[in-house]
Amino acid sequence: MHNIAANRTFMDTNKPVLFTSVSPALLHLYDVSQSIVVIIDVLRATSTIATALENGAKTIIPVDSVAECIRIGKQINAITAGERDGKVAEGLQYGNSPFEYPKEFIEGKTLVLTTTNGTKLLHMALNNGAKEIITGSFANIDAVCNHLVGKKMNVVLACAAWKDRVNIEDTLFAGMVISKIKNHFSINCDASQMAEGLYHSAATDLYAYMEKVNASHFARLSSFGLQKDIRFCLTANTASALPLYTDGKLINHIV
Amino acid sequence: MHNIAANRTFMDTNKPVLFTSVSPALLHLYDVSQSIVVIIDVLRATSTIATALENGAKTIIPVDSVAECIRIGKQINAITAGERDGKVAEGLQYGNSPFEYPKEFIEGKTLVLTTTNGTKLLHMALNNGAKEIITGSFANIDAVCNHLVGKKMNVVLACAAWKDRVNIEDTLFAGMVISKIKNHFSINCDASQMAEGLYHSAATDLYAYMEKVNASHFARLSSFGLQKDIRFCLTANTASALPLYTDGKLINHIV
Repeated sequence: MHNIAANRTFMDTNKPVLFTSVSPALLHLYDVSQSIVVIIDVLRATSTIATALENGAKTIIPVDSVAECIRIGKQINAITAGERDGKVAEGLQYGNSPFEYPKEFIEGKTLVLTTTNGTKLLHMALNNGAKEIITGSFANIDAVCNHLVGKKMNVVLACAAWKDRVNIEDTLFAGMVISKIKNHFSINCDASQMAEGLYHSAATDLYAYMEKVNASHFARLSSFGLQKDIRFCLTANTASALPLYTDGKLINHIV
Repeated sequence: MHNIAANRTFMDTNKPVLFTSVSPALLHLYDVSQSIVVIIDVLRATSTIATALENGAKTIIPVDSVAECIRIGKQINAITAGERDGKVAEGLQYGNSPFEYPKEFIEGKTLVLTTTNGTKLLHMALNNGAKEIITGSFANIDAVCNHLVGKKMNVVLACAAWKDRVNIEDTLFAGMVISKIKNHFSINCDASQMAEGLYHSAATDLYAYMEKVNASHFARLSSFGLQKDIRFCLTANTASALPLYTDGKLINHIV
């Protein structure tokens, strides 16, 4: 009676731990210095990153502002991309849609990608001393899961959210990852349990679920006519790329 | 196509808005200055508060430390209560269980109650200029819902969580409140949608759900043998009291 929690911990001692941070404002609660941090920004940054690397992009440099994107783009003569209110931002060349980066366009090139929530979170993980940083999305979920299981290290699933407000799609992705790999980890984290529960209640049709509950980002992107992007970003395993952050760039760890 | 979000906002213009803050670390994202803030600390602070006021406590003074509890208790000659690791804290008289405050004991008395997460959050709401602060728990859920609907003001459901980490029981309560009153509010908040979804997946038996997913607080309190407290704190409408925070004290707004 007295030792339910203690026993559980004891039983799982040999497994690495897994936590879910549902907002960048909560990331500091988790010890990332001994963990792989998975940056999750499903709509659409990390989906586009997985897709562009899958299609042969050499590297992707995530930046948090249009000005920085323009500066680096000029400096290294790279493709610049980013949006404001659903349109290519002034001074940049391309947008944030995964459909803009087919193989015939992106192969062998470097992309400087403006993303606000995802890049901010990535830099937080970096500054907090994360052992390793990768990005995850439905597009490359199995590549992410296989990597996490194989590494046998602690994991923090870090949702980019929206200006620190919890969002449904990033939490859904965390939940799907947990549903796939939970047997390999010791999970004593209510946020992870909630994410997995959310995923199971939405699993039969993620798009329909997002529409039904009028997820804030679903409503926002729909208002720009981007339903096709949303549908793609909620589709599992269109890519096998594993974006690994190293020396300020994302590269495909599986080539 | 372009105006789904805009139309929705337009349609709901006449209703007050409702948001859910799943952790004190996210409270600053919401404008509490025009809102009723509901402090939620289901296991066990706000359940005990509702119960003690229901049983006739004159006022309850929530404090965030044992030292402060002792100081105020002496100063006004009140009952002092608080726990550390499942036992009455040294220097205090009673614990945090709702069962310690029956009518024959608490009626007409003032209780100084030590709660860490809940009091911290309450003071944050106060410092952020909350229009009104009440506390909520399953014990008095209908009193809370009736008050919120009647007031026709914006609402922030504020979960006390556990050292800023999201917890299941407070989110479940927020979800149950939303399921009851959502037609009276405009809700454009993913955290609220997630809380309601969580509640629906757990609604048939909240206790069994908490046990099944091994909610962290469930495990912790169970390890102290406090299953009876957990069961009580997950039971709806054992009280009709509405704890309202005013001048540093919680009083029963419905008498």
